[in-house]
Amino acid sequence: MDYKAYFEQRREEHLNQLKEWISIPSISALSEHKEDVNRAANWLAETLKKAGLENVEVHQTQGHPIVYADHLHAPGRPTVLVYGHYDVQPVDPLHLWETPPFEPQIRDNKLYARGATDDKGQLFLHLKAVEALIQQGTPLPVNIKLCIEGEEEVSSTNLHPFIDTYKDKLAADVVVISDTELLAPGKPAISTGLRGLCSLDVSVRTAKSDLHSGTFGGGVPNALHALVSLLASLHDEKGRIAVEGFYDDVPDLTPEMRAELARKSFDEEQQKLTLDLDALYGEEGYSYVERTGARPTLEINGMYGGFQGEGTKTVIPCQAHAKITCRLVGQQNPQDILDKIERHIRSHTPPGARVTVTQREKGNPFTIDPSTPLLQKAADAYERVYGTRPVFTKDGGSIPIVEALSRVLSVPVVLMGFGLPDENLHAPNEHFHLENFDKGLLTIVEFLNSI
Amino acid sequence: MDYKAYFEQRREEHLNQLKEWISIPSISALSEHKEDVNRAANWLAETLKKAGLENVEVHQTQGHPIVYADHLHAPGRPTVLVYGHYDVQPVDPLHLWETPPFEPQIRDNKLYARGATDDKGQLFLHLKAVEALIQQGTPLPVNIKLCIEGEEEVSSTNLHPFIDTYKDKLAADVVVISDTELLAPGKPAISTGLRGLCSLDVSVRTAKSDLHSGTFGGGVPNALHALVSLLASLHDEKGRIAVEGFYDDVPDLTPEMRAELARKSFDEEQQKLTLDLDALYGEEGYSYVERTGARPTLEINGMYGGFQGEGTKTVIPCQAHAKITCRLVGQQNPQDILDKIERHIRSHTPPGARVTVTQREKGNPFTIDPSTPLLQKAADAYERVYGTRPVFTKDGGSIPIVEALSRVLSVPVVLMGFGLPDENLHAPNEHFHLENFDKGLLTIVEFLNSI
Repeated sequence: MDYKAYFEQRREEHLNQLKEWISIPSISALSEHKEDVNRAANWLAETLKKAGLENVEVHQTQGHPIVYADHLHAPGRPTVLVYGHYDVQPVDPLHLWETPPFEPQIRDNKLYARGATDDKGQLFLHLKAVEALIQQGTPLPVNIKLCIEGEEEVSSTNLHPFIDTYKDKLAADVVVISDTELLAPGKPAISTGLRGLCSLDVSVRTAKSDLHSGTFGGGVPNALHALVSLLASLHDEKGRIAVEGFYDDVPDLTPEMRAELARKSFDEEQQKLTLDLDALYGEEGYSYVERTGARPTLEINGMYGGFQGEGTKTVIPCQAHAKITCRLVGQQNPQDILDKIERHIRSHTPPGARVTVTQREKGNPFTIDPSTPLLQKAADAYERVYGTRPVFTKDGGSIPIVEALSRVLSVPVVLMGFGLPDENLHAPNEHFHLENFDKGLLTIVEFLNSI
Repeated sequence: MDYKAYFEQRREEHLNQLKEWISIPSISALSEHKEDVNRAANWLAETLKKAGLENVEVHQTQGHPIVYADHLHAPGRPTVLVYGHYDVQPVDPLHLWETPPFEPQIRDNKLYARGATDDKGQLFLHLKAVEALIQQGTPLPVNIKLCIEGEEEVSSTNLHPFIDTYKDKLAADVVVISDTELLAPGKPAISTGLRGLCSLDVSVRTAKSDLHSGTFGGGVPNALHALVSLLASLHDEKGRIAVEGFYDDVPDLTPEMRAELARKSFDEEQQKLTLDLDALYGEEGYSYVERTGARPTLEINGMYGGFQGEGTKTVIPCQAHAKITCRLVGQQNPQDILDKIERHIRSHTPPGARVTVTQREKGNPFTIDPSTPLLQKAADAYERVYGTRPVFTKDGGSIPIVEALSRVLSVPVVLMGFGLPDENLHAPNEHFHLENFDKGLLTIVEFLNSI
């Protein structure tokens, strides 16, 4: 079958369907859109049925529904589980949108609307690719399952227990997700790593109240001094994290990995200009691309204590607070890292400071070896469609559900993204470049036909 | 003349006069009390005239008036300048007062009201002591000048230029001030040091906006990390200030000075209980009393940057701010210290951080040698009245006008305080123990008669 001709013939029809779905404001974070989120789930279920998928279920949860469907008619062939999400981010600030976020418009071969690239537009490619395979008739190259959630933008709260409970139903040989990016137009990428995440709050208390800096200054502990010295002790002068054992489960970067990451060409001077920075900064001995993708971090996200008003207040603060997040890689375990940081804080607490540590979020890092055969097949598919072999990248961000799917189902996850870095996801004027709509359909079909 | 009998006979009359004055709510900080502050100045001027003082002037300023008076009829004898203030602190929180702040009441031989001890009550002692001397007739032991301001609680803004302009008119052999404290009931003290003050704000900027800690984490500077490392560098691990040259003009504590300070007995365990502190803390090698009186400090008074809300926000902050105050001693010069701190900050600024330093307040330290003959005479006077020799103390707080008077007029300043540490100045239920009202009158007369 000539899939190129097939998709070209149906392009307008497909785009009209996608626009219809995107017009539903399925903002998962805002309770006033709960019914819209439901509508988007039902639209998806109906569309899956029309595409020929079976066992279509809209699984209700305590939050938004999870949509499941399958088509299991390729005995002896691999089973592919497609994951994606039909919920979208809020649209504020509305006045910065050139056209209304839920009135999709094509300008310059780009589809503008909230959800165009994150993730309805990318997910829609799988619907249409699977539909095309089913239309083509037997023998089908693969068995297909889809598991689509409506809470990706709000921490996948109900999907985590769902995959634990339904791991047999979701069993597959590979998970495919299109929710990431190309490097640039015409330069495909496959992500082989997402960083994990853990976060904690640190509070210091000293005296029962703020004290006069004249009467007491020099004689008593200052909560801000204690917190500043604690926080400064978390990094050394080379930008390394100084918490004992922090790097224990971080894999060394092999020459091969470094060479692969170096293929992601990166212009440091341009980045400084874009961010209005005097200098980039980070762990000595690693490139910017390595530091932001393949190395862990510890960042202070916020801090406050004492007097914050105009002018001077001669006070010794009795309270100080900080918020910290780490990005994790390799086999780093968020609970283990939180415990190590807490131990560091306890052992570096200066006299007179009472420290409270509150552990918060925990998400495992995801990593996959680029030599995994299914990743190589995905790379082949990209190469056939784009005419260039994708780069295997490491992403700095965290999508904890990816690691959970890989771990619970014991399968490789292929992150086949078709977005572009400048498509304004989570921002006004989100869009999806239709060059990658067209090539994405073909790449997915190529991949499914090749495994 | 039997001054003891003289004052006993007139005690009720004197206390009624003082109550009348204290009833005027001369709160200098609140513009709605401007007329009350004026009334308190006029009451003072009238009372000085009735006491026999001459050249009484209510000198108008851009703020509140300065009251001047003199009595210069002791040729060949020393001239004493009395400084004090007739303005008072605000009274909030009002509901914590047992009786209304401007309805003076005597309970338990203590006069309760705002201004009872700070400073109307203490200043009033000088009015009545001088009146007694004038009543007693010639030959008078001293010439007297009084310079009383109404802006001590709001930085003495107009008195600083006044003493520069009228330094000939104010010329004297000694300045006497009663605005400090005894150590405890029956334990008099003469302060031989007040710390100076300087303050500054430090701000750090990095990127043009806060950045996502996943995408950028590890690759770019974090404004809070930069500020934390800058601030941590200001002290060493022994609690010493690590700014180059900071201690250059700090006099070494001689064994005699340390012995004198050690006479101020101090219960560290009790202080920990009172302040609910696990430990006292400060510069190694110095006692609490030394650290809070005779050593300089550098305190972070406030700090903020990044996310301060509930939960987690995965952001790399692009701005961070801190406020710093130093207390100075000896020959430390506030401008010189600010410049040294600024130099330290510039040389410790990490890559990618843009630092702004804003210099704010500057006040010189005051110090006087306890062996100064006039201080010894003041000590003799206390000893004759209280039956015990006063301790020469160093106070941690700052009263910049004391150093200015001493410097501009080139005279010793005798800080003859009659308050007690628990008299709630600046707080609800301010009071003045009348034992020290009675003994204060006699001590001042003894002093003036002895020089």
